[in-house]
Amino acid sequence: MMRIPLNRADTAPLYTQIYKFLRQQIETEALVVGSRLPASRELATDLGVSRVTVINAIAELEAEGFVTSVQGSGAYVSDWLSLVEPLVGETATSAVLSAGVFPWPNWQTRIEQDATVSLYSDHERQIVSCNHPDLIQFASGMGSTEVFDLDAFRRTFQAVLRRDGADALGYGDTTHGGYEPLRATIAQILSNSGIPTHAENVLITSGSQQAISLVAHLLVKPGETILVESPTYEGGLNLFMSMGANVVGVPMDEDGIRLDALEAALQSHQPKLIYTIPTFHNPTGTSLDTQRRRQLIALAQQYNVPIVEDDFVGELRYEGYAQPALKALDTDGSVIYINTFSKALVPGLRLGFLAANGPVFEQLVILKRANDRSSSDMMQRALDAYITVGRYQAQLRKVGRIYRRRRNAMLAALEQFMPEGVGWQRPFGGLFLWLQLPDGMDAAELLSLALEQGVAFVPGSAFFADKRPFSALRLNFTVHEPEIIEVGIERLAKAIKMKV
Amino acid sequence: MMRIPLNRADTAPLYTQIYKFLRQQIETEALVVGSRLPASRELATDLGVSRVTVINAIAELEAEGFVTSVQGSGAYVSDWLSLVEPLVGETATSAVLSAGVFPWPNWQTRIEQDATVSLYSDHERQIVSCNHPDLIQFASGMGSTEVFDLDAFRRTFQAVLRRDGADALGYGDTTHGGYEPLRATIAQILSNSGIPTHAENVLITSGSQQAISLVAHLLVKPGETILVESPTYEGGLNLFMSMGANVVGVPMDEDGIRLDALEAALQSHQPKLIYTIPTFHNPTGTSLDTQRRRQLIALAQQYNVPIVEDDFVGELRYEGYAQPALKALDTDGSVIYINTFSKALVPGLRLGFLAANGPVFEQLVILKRANDRSSSDMMQRALDAYITVGRYQAQLRKVGRIYRRRRNAMLAALEQFMPEGVGWQRPFGGLFLWLQLPDGMDAAELLSLALEQGVAFVPGSAFFADKRPFSALRLNFTVHEPEIIEVGIERLAKAIKMKV
Repeated sequence: MMRIPLNRADTAPLYTQIYKFLRQQIETEALVVGSRLPASRELATDLGVSRVTVINAIAELEAEGFVTSVQGSGAYVSDWLSLVEPLVGETATSAVLSAGVFPWPNWQTRIEQDATVSLYSDHERQIVSCNHPDLIQFASGMGSTEVFDLDAFRRTFQAVLRRDGADALGYGDTTHGGYEPLRATIAQILSNSGIPTHAENVLITSGSQQAISLVAHLLVKPGETILVESPTYEGGLNLFMSMGANVVGVPMDEDGIRLDALEAALQSHQPKLIYTIPTFHNPTGTSLDTQRRRQLIALAQQYNVPIVEDDFVGELRYEGYAQPALKALDTDGSVIYINTFSKALVPGLRLGFLAANGPVFEQLVILKRANDRSSSDMMQRALDAYITVGRYQAQLRKVGRIYRRRRNAMLAALEQFMPEGVGWQRPFGGLFLWLQLPDGMDAAELLSLALEQGVAFVPGSAFFADKRPFSALRLNFTVHEPEIIEVGIERLAKAIKMKV
Repeated sequence: MMRIPLNRADTAPLYTQIYKFLRQQIETEALVVGSRLPASRELATDLGVSRVTVINAIAELEAEGFVTSVQGSGAYVSDWLSLVEPLVGETATSAVLSAGVFPWPNWQTRIEQDATVSLYSDHERQIVSCNHPDLIQFASGMGSTEVFDLDAFRRTFQAVLRRDGADALGYGDTTHGGYEPLRATIAQILSNSGIPTHAENVLITSGSQQAISLVAHLLVKPGETILVESPTYEGGLNLFMSMGANVVGVPMDEDGIRLDALEAALQSHQPKLIYTIPTFHNPTGTSLDTQRRRQLIALAQQYNVPIVEDDFVGELRYEGYAQPALKALDTDGSVIYINTFSKALVPGLRLGFLAANGPVFEQLVILKRANDRSSSDMMQRALDAYITVGRYQAQLRKVGRIYRRRRNAMLAALEQFMPEGVGWQRPFGGLFLWLQLPDGMDAAELLSLALEQGVAFVPGSAFFADKRPFSALRLNFTVHEPEIIEVGIERLAKAIKMKV
């Protein structure tokens, strides 16, 4: 059904209006070469005009070479690009948008001026446009997709659609937090990792990013303050800034967020939220010890501020002792816990979750429903059929083995290749290693040299709200095989030596 | 890996801490009967304690009957519910959350008090708790899931995962608006329905609900005004209210939104957004004529206010002429167009989209990325492989045939059964019919009687921002077969007669 705008009050005859609309659509390539035009009888009925009117319009297009009729099949947009003499937009259809006849409305210009976040960060733009033939990618924020057993998941997905049929095709649950069996499984996974949880406290989200977004939108209004570690996850920063929140970074030391600085910030900024990654922090890889975890919670309680704990890789530990999640130390509902299946399984599922206790949970369910109704019920059912506590733990062990080997390869290569003045902390888990450059070397400036050498990383500035130049960078050690990691670090060392 | 919180500064020995933690988890049923506890060697390594410490803790649990050891297999949570004497939470673990030892923090109490939207609307609560053995469902907001060829989609999904492998497992495109081939297909579908569109103006979202949410969050701050038709889509109202927006309803007549009232509202409220459903409106089924469409856009341009056009069923027309989408009349980027695959295909895909021109498009892409990174790339690829312009149009024709028959059945049944004083307008398309009750009859009050008779609908009040009592209700005519529809309308007529 083609809903062509007609103006019956216009002096231009209807066939001319139809002709002009179609010609503009063809010339602006909205209707591409080879598209079939609607049958004249059908179009006449849809538009409430006589069939002759439509036939005349199409005949005109055909005479000018825009359209070719095929006996018994209909009219198709021909390869008209050899034609010249473009029609200037004179009728009021949205085809003229492409021609840019009118300036954008003021509100559009304003929205662009007011933007706080750009589509690409500087480093993304640089990396995307890098044309090195075999770029080694340490800039990724994801784990490796190889660790996921796609064939097994594919078979499970099939089996679930066969099993559930039409039941899997609706919105699914929108009032309890998602597909109940999956929430129960998640609660069991959490409980078995030391975070006592029940299904009725689990909300399934479209990745952990949406979980962070829901919590931030619920608890923080534009202009209000969110405390974050400084540096912190770039996706969190961009989200908070896009909301118009005031993002205040709290300095870290080698053991994580500094509690003296946190208390000072709590006093001076009256924040509405603390966003923290206490375990295998992004980007630095550090973890808070248990003692500081308890103190962090006590401070939040004292100042009546909720904590969002982003535990995105909390279970990917390669050495050292397990630190409890903040949520496991939560006594009164101060901590909202967030995790994802993007790291231990695969990002493409777009499934994450949060666990929260108290009245805030229902408000988050309401907000999720208001914002996108539900995450794909089909995908939730497939994931539930795919994972069990045992299978999830086995997957964590498998991923842990692979990533530990890759981390070790990176550490060994750093020892071997890095010059004086470069420092790093051994990450006990997670995906990232934070590399300190020699004093005063700006990592953002180093990036172009490194890309020329064929290695990508994320410069430290990306992880600060003010994007200040910074002499550290983030390396993801999980994406490549050890041999490639070694080559990548050698390249990086070469770039650094060129800058020293 | 079980991350049990230990307090090494505590006077309680470590084995007691481990024992208490596990016992609390078992007693609060976070660890359910039959769960396997971690192996003692593994747990000892994870926690950095001696193996004897762990063995002692588990032995204590076993002695008390909470745990059963199985030779060579490990320790399992036993069926302990027969035991008495629950442990009162005295250690600081989140298990005590369930016990409610501490009151919720103040911010939680406040968030609950400030809530503007409740989890269930009154009618949802009533309908959910109705226990009529064969309730006829006219309250649904969805079409029928039967119209979707699940088997064909299932095969396509399989084929795509086989074809794309690991490529389908990442986040997919997050900087252009989604999977490029699907955006191109959507642009072609729109162009072929008279809305000239290019792939670079299409943003794929998680259903149309997320598209509305992104636009509203970008353009409207808390306290600012959104104009909506009165009545309008409940999901839109809930979203806008959850954002703290000021929602102002503009009255409608039998041809849609009243332009005199719209202009008055534009003058007095300085709104930031007009949200409208011009075609087969939810809940009333009315459509704006082309003339009013042009005037609506001219008003928006004059007052520098963006329009969001929700075209969720714009292509499901059963009689009358096709009205152009507002977007097809847009000359300067004033209209942001929203549509979904939930209606013509199936809600479970959770895929919708928007089309926008001008700087606002990039800002929406940024916001989508900040809020949930991307919609499932896997699902986008599967949908792209599944639909073509031709297949989509064929699907619309098929759905149109089925729904027209059901609409006709409802109209015939209304004629047959409804008493004096009940009125309705013949919907020319879409899913809904708006039924006017006899003067002064409150539809919300009628609902409980109707549910007793075995028929559900949505009372008119749900579609007004102030939820005022209203003597009209919304019927979805697409969910049931004609024979069931007839029975449902007969039941509804009976309930109405009881109230007259």
